[in-house]
Amino acid sequence: MISRRRFVRGMAAASLAAVAGVRARAQNAQSIGIDGRRLRERIEGLSMFGRPAGGTFADGVSRIAYSDADVEGRRYVMGLMKAAGLQPRIDPAGNIFAMRAGTDRSLPPILFGSHIDSVPSGGNFDGDLGSLSALGAIEALDAAGIRTRHPLEIVVWAHEEGFAFGRGLACSRIAAGDVTPADLDEVWNGVRRADAIRKIGGNPDRITEAKRAKGSHHCYLELHIEQGGTLERSGIAVGVVEGIVAIDKYDAIVTGFANHAGTTPIADRHDALLAAAHLTVAVREAVTATPGRHVGTVGHIEVTPNSPNVIPGRAQISIELRDLSPQKLVTMMDDIRGRAREIAATTQTTIEFKKTMGAAPATASPEVQAAIERAARSLELTSSRLPSGAGHDAQMMALVGPMGMIFVPSVRGISHSPDELTHWDDCERGGNVLLRTILEMDKEPPPASFRL
Amino acid sequence: MISRRRFVRGMAAASLAAVAGVRARAQNAQSIGIDGRRLRERIEGLSMFGRPAGGTFADGVSRIAYSDADVEGRRYVMGLMKAAGLQPRIDPAGNIFAMRAGTDRSLPPILFGSHIDSVPSGGNFDGDLGSLSALGAIEALDAAGIRTRHPLEIVVWAHEEGFAFGRGLACSRIAAGDVTPADLDEVWNGVRRADAIRKIGGNPDRITEAKRAKGSHHCYLELHIEQGGTLERSGIAVGVVEGIVAIDKYDAIVTGFANHAGTTPIADRHDALLAAAHLTVAVREAVTATPGRHVGTVGHIEVTPNSPNVIPGRAQISIELRDLSPQKLVTMMDDIRGRAREIAATTQTTIEFKKTMGAAPATASPEVQAAIERAARSLELTSSRLPSGAGHDAQMMALVGPMGMIFVPSVRGISHSPDELTHWDDCERGGNVLLRTILEMDKEPPPASFRL
Repeated sequence: MISRRRFVRGMAAASLAAVAGVRARAQNAQSIGIDGRRLRERIEGLSMFGRPAGGTFADGVSRIAYSDADVEGRRYVMGLMKAAGLQPRIDPAGNIFAMRAGTDRSLPPILFGSHIDSVPSGGNFDGDLGSLSALGAIEALDAAGIRTRHPLEIVVWAHEEGFAFGRGLACSRIAAGDVTPADLDEVWNGVRRADAIRKIGGNPDRITEAKRAKGSHHCYLELHIEQGGTLERSGIAVGVVEGIVAIDKYDAIVTGFANHAGTTPIADRHDALLAAAHLTVAVREAVTATPGRHVGTVGHIEVTPNSPNVIPGRAQISIELRDLSPQKLVTMMDDIRGRAREIAATTQTTIEFKKTMGAAPATASPEVQAAIERAARSLELTSSRLPSGAGHDAQMMALVGPMGMIFVPSVRGISHSPDELTHWDDCERGGNVLLRTILEMDKEPPPASFRL
Repeated sequence: MISRRRFVRGMAAASLAAVAGVRARAQNAQSIGIDGRRLRERIEGLSMFGRPAGGTFADGVSRIAYSDADVEGRRYVMGLMKAAGLQPRIDPAGNIFAMRAGTDRSLPPILFGSHIDSVPSGGNFDGDLGSLSALGAIEALDAAGIRTRHPLEIVVWAHEEGFAFGRGLACSRIAAGDVTPADLDEVWNGVRRADAIRKIGGNPDRITEAKRAKGSHHCYLELHIEQGGTLERSGIAVGVVEGIVAIDKYDAIVTGFANHAGTTPIADRHDALLAAAHLTVAVREAVTATPGRHVGTVGHIEVTPNSPNVIPGRAQISIELRDLSPQKLVTMMDDIRGRAREIAATTQTTIEFKKTMGAAPATASPEVQAAIERAARSLELTSSRLPSGAGHDAQMMALVGPMGMIFVPSVRGISHSPDELTHWDDCERGGNVLLRTILEMDKEPPPASFRL
């Protein structure tokens, strides 16, 4: 047993040491930064796996999940992790994790990363930037001799794009516990999903062990390109994601009457394509009728018989609405339904709607959003809050723990295209905001906004 | 040499005989009529060739040109002609003709008829009514003991619908002199056109002999179902066709920019489908901006990539304009181009137009139109002048000689469908108008409006 006096003196000494450590860390944190040149080299290096034959970096990449290019890209990234002194492991779903110890063994890790699979003919920034910046952040901390309280865990999620097999965000979805035995039997491109998972080092027999328990990490952070043009257009360096939008999808089916385009007077027509055209315009009108960052898209149309000399008898269009507020989607759809009733009456057609999909929104934790803003401010970078209109692994992690995302500008807002581009200095800035956010969150108690 | 006196006496006697003959014919012509019951039986009989297996008359017909059903249908009709004492012949193009002598060998024949081929899943009135009424008219004249001055020639044109091979009105087109050796080499459904022509009794080696010289008939008459709803809606029994409309066809190609439907703010979009939708509405607006019987149709649309979650980068629509006046088509298209410029500016897209087809109008001779009106009036039937929005063999015959068409009401304006229907009493009325028009035109000198 130690005396109270000795205990207090010990505490004071520990306290002094802690204060000194905090000061040293604070100084290091002031000057700390990821290696932008190395980040670029690695993004370029990764771009080789899945690059079109004879192409250059600007020709984009096709690194479909589970393809040979994906396997090679994953090997490349795991090699970089090992070179940085980490020991990557692959979970049963095929996700790659690597842990850096913290100073407090009682604390859960701060998890951060992204994905490296792409859509066919995709770009070299979507996912790659967040995955390679995660490693860059760890190396920067190593270089600065900073050890965080929380362990740091980096992740490269498998199969984010949802090109192979049925659903996107597939392996972060499994990590969130959303997987059934039937999923493993799914066949895509002649390959059973269980075998595809084995191909990238996963273990379908133990797939449920890939599930991360609620609260198993302090927070999840993801740096990603915006994929839209908001940041670039407004000249803002950093996007602080408020959440990932809810999505409602509908099919609108217009029934008219097919008839001869030469002999049927205008007044006698029941032109389904004309009605679908009016409805397409009405969707845009309903979307722009109220201010906000919500979007609505008619991306798909099918017309029968679709012949220049026949008045179309049937037309079907897709309607996709996205906003952080599910209620706003309902209100917009009500507006669209009202407009459709008028269109049906005017065009002598009938219009019915079928809901084909509804995805709940995923909110970024306010504490993480605030930490990202402080990180940006410490780097004298402008920032702005905005929703993510695209899906991300972060939305699955929002089910497991506090989540936040950092966006950097996409040139002309182009993504899922070889023309996808984020300037190298924006890539480096994004990596540094990720790094500072890790340090900000390391100081934070578990975000109170997240309920286990 | 006969004396002047004897000559005068002879003339007077001939004159008296002629007057008596005219009186007798006039009386017969008052009561003359085609056999409506027999017309119906024959339309029902012809419907058996190409009827869907197990179907009824109401299930329509698929008697594609050159099919076995077409060959059998043609045999059926030629059998009816022979039973009526006619000697059908098949011209080198495959068209069926049959001649009834007139009293004046120096006069060219009055030609009338239609076609019996159908579109797939077509109706039993389109073409069949005009072909079988032509025979019915001859039989009515036989029954009444009336011999016309002009020979009467009935025709069943081959391959009117243009379903097989490239172009419609194919064999009346050949009769108008529009055929090239390359046409005979065309292959459709595995069959060379020359062989198809042989199959129906034509002779491709002598195809150019199928051409009818200008002025080789007194006039061409065709009874046809309206295929539109104008007559039925206005309660008018007989349509007097003013002409067959000119047709201009265009493709409008909209170029936008394909982008992510979730991440691209509304203001940044270059949505090609939205622009195409506005343009589809604009075509209707331009068509209805001026009064008239012209029509305009957007029947075909193609969108790229046509995916619900991608803003369409490209869209293409067909624009088809029809009116008797080619100038009106040009004016309408100018209006559409003007609207397209505004749409392109508003939607941040580009819109270009390509003309894909232009067909000149075919005017019905005023003398023939007047004869049809007199014929209708003599039957106490209401009539109305109207354009034909559909193409007909008559438009090819308009290149060879004076032409006129008689329309009867189509129930609900439906055609090219098993639902195609013309009431039996309207069929009979149409046949009688054809018959009376033949007699009216028999009294007429060669229409002065037609220039050789």
